Amino acid sequence: MRASIIREILKVSSKPGIISFAGGLPAPETFPLKKFEQAMIEALRRDGTKALQYMVTEGFRPLKEYLCGWLRKQRIQGTPEQMLMTHGSQQGLELLGKIFINPGDSVLVEDPTYLGAIQSFNTFETKYVTVPMDARGMSPEAVEKALQRRPQVKFIYVVPTFHNPAGSTMTLERRQALIKIARRRRIPILEDDPYGLLRFKGKPLPSLYALAKGRGVVYMSTFSKLLSPGIRLGYILADQEIIDQLVLAKQPTDLQTNTLIQYAVYHYCKHGYLEKHLPLIIKDYAHRAQVMEEAIRRYFPRQVTFIEPEGGMFFWCTLPENINAGEVFKKALKKGVAFVDGSVFFANGGGKNTMRLNFTNCTDAAIRSGIQKLGGVLEDFIQGPGSR
Amino acid sequence: MRASIIREILKVSSKPGIISFAGGLPAPETFPLKKFEQAMIEALRRDGTKALQYMVTEGFRPLKEYLCGWLRKQRIQGTPEQMLMTHGSQQGLELLGKIFINPGDSVLVEDPTYLGAIQSFNTFETKYVTVPMDARGMSPEAVEKALQRRPQVKFIYVVPTFHNPAGSTMTLERRQALIKIARRRRIPILEDDPYGLLRFKGKPLPSLYALAKGRGVVYMSTFSKLLSPGIRLGYILADQEIIDQLVLAKQPTDLQTNTLIQYAVYHYCKHGYLEKHLPLIIKDYAHRAQVMEEAIRRYFPRQVTFIEPEGGMFFWCTLPENINAGEVFKKALKKGVAFVDGSVFFANGGGKNTMRLNFTNCTDAAIRSGIQKLGGVLEDFIQGPGSR
Repeated sequence: MRASIIREILKVSSKPGIISFAGGLPAPETFPLKKFEQAMIEALRRDGTKALQYMVTEGFRPLKEYLCGWLRKQRIQGTPEQMLMTHGSQQGLELLGKIFINPGDSVLVEDPTYLGAIQSFNTFETKYVTVPMDARGMSPEAVEKALQRRPQVKFIYVVPTFHNPAGSTMTLERRQALIKIARRRRIPILEDDPYGLLRFKGKPLPSLYALAKGRGVVYMSTFSKLLSPGIRLGYILADQEIIDQLVLAKQPTDLQTNTLIQYAVYHYCKHGYLEKHLPLIIKDYAHRAQVMEEAIRRYFPRQVTFIEPEGGMFFWCTLPENINAGEVFKKALKKGVAFVDGSVFFANGGGKNTMRLNFTNCTDAAIRSGIQKLGGVLEDFIQGPGSR
Repeated sequence: MRASIIREILKVSSKPGIISFAGGLPAPETFPLKKFEQAMIEALRRDGTKALQYMVTEGFRPLKEYLCGWLRKQRIQGTPEQMLMTHGSQQGLELLGKIFINPGDSVLVEDPTYLGAIQSFNTFETKYVTVPMDARGMSPEAVEKALQRRPQVKFIYVVPTFHNPAGSTMTLERRQALIKIARRRRIPILEDDPYGLLRFKGKPLPSLYALAKGRGVVYMSTFSKLLSPGIRLGYILADQEIIDQLVLAKQPTDLQTNTLIQYAVYHYCKHGYLEKHLPLIIKDYAHRAQVMEEAIRRYFPRQVTFIEPEGGMFFWCTLPENINAGEVFKKALKKGVAFVDGSVFFANGGGKNTMRLNFTNCTDAAIRSGIQKLGGVLEDFIQGPGSR
């Protein structure tokens, strides 16, 4: 059901003439076409047939070695043996679900949480313990309380940095407290970090994995938001024991992640292109986020509150409680603007008065015009039509 | 368990100095490096950022249109709406398992059958109804008998053409009879056809899908054996209703198949390169198969029988009943030759006296020398050591 709702939203959003804040697509203008082509040619010419042959399920070792070095700079310590290359982060979620969840098991998630995670975990007939979050992330006290009622959760799934959909970032204190709680109860934390490096405001914070020195934390990330989502390349860093299980789970799923893509991305990284490229994306996103923020402040009724993101790709808005974002969506679409009705991100329902706005896939002009139109629709809902 | 056995076999087989008939790797010499590079550059230059962006789960429509035309020449009729692009055929098996199999359900498979299929279906706690096969494929009478005992099977999984591991091809009469049985009992047939175009002997036979005009047959194939396995690109052709379910099953699994690869393969195909390339692979495999066949006839004891393949990548050998192929494997490895102990391909056990030999990943000299050594080991087992 949920899958079909979001597919429906994205389908109508992609119609010509619609300004869409609905998707979660990175800005195509930031894709490094030339450099990636060079890396691809290098893979095909230098590595030759190896780049087109089957390879081990674990992934391409030189790329994993590069990534371990890259992560070390973020104080994330791990070895290539602790890493599995996946067909995007989405596959990482699916594989983790496969090894951790039996039908009827519970997992703890933020409310709201990443829709793709709900979709993956649903495959395993998962139940959800949901914990509310705010601009500072999920509250550890709320986690503690939830676990007192439901102590048997299989893991805690969390997107601590530049949350999708909520745009929020968990504070250092909350990170430390969460690790403490999880460790005391021996519950693994699954840290999903696709956006962590896309910070355009504020000071960098260590990941949960870095803070916990890897103990009890499974770390996931991806090239989707740094290089290209179409190449489907993500990775998981975890205890080797977990990785061994994931490898056995991945083998029947698809044998291995794309060989050629792994070789090409390796060459791309090896030349330092990823490091050089990152600031360009951040600059671009900082700009678009600012344009959207200014537009929201200008055009949205003051009753609509929002979380100001310090990075990532999303603004999260909360409407007055009596306003239904699903109804707003229908009206907005008629005016040519789309977004995602935030309720789809609540694993156990709720959030009817929330909206997710993506800012990385529209021009400045489209952002301004779309937010202005959406502001008008919201005004009608809040003040009654014709009030302006 | 089974997964770890085969991983172990492949690990020892890949040691330097070992002549390996163990893997299922296509000949790297046949990978069209230059043309594929050209297609890749075209994708990145012409399609630009679209080739690196997210795309719909269903797959790249122009590629699906090309494939429908390509399949039409094999009398396989279908529309792009009836096709899903997968991350290799292995993912196709997983997704089909997901939508068809509930824990404890049975599926009917050939004995032996493709190991990757067993591994995928095992994920869903599948039970197997196994039907023996010979050089002419699975016998319809045996299928009928098996279904009388266990009528509730969810589908019939079959590799009718150039079987892996058995190298055999189901005759036209048997194909027709199998379709009749399946139709009468309303059991879907899952036709796995990775090698169908790699015929180097005998006359082409229509696929089950073609014979059944698609009714009741799900057809799967892949670019792995025609272009490159490392690019992980396969497809499923089926009733649109099944495809719709597969799309919903794929979304939480990995969102979509690689965009860039789909664009590049489209350009590769569009230029007619696939058609031009195919005869080169066939010629290469015909030659290697002949070298292996001659070597087997020359060096194997006459008590060892084998199926003469008309295409594909494998020879299947049957030893006298009292000889254990696992023991032969150990001795052969000491002499520097590896193969796969055929028992791993039997879903319910058995086949202890069978061996699978791959001929597509060794030079002529290695094939001759490896078969000679293996012949010596077999001689020792059959005649007793030192008999020569």
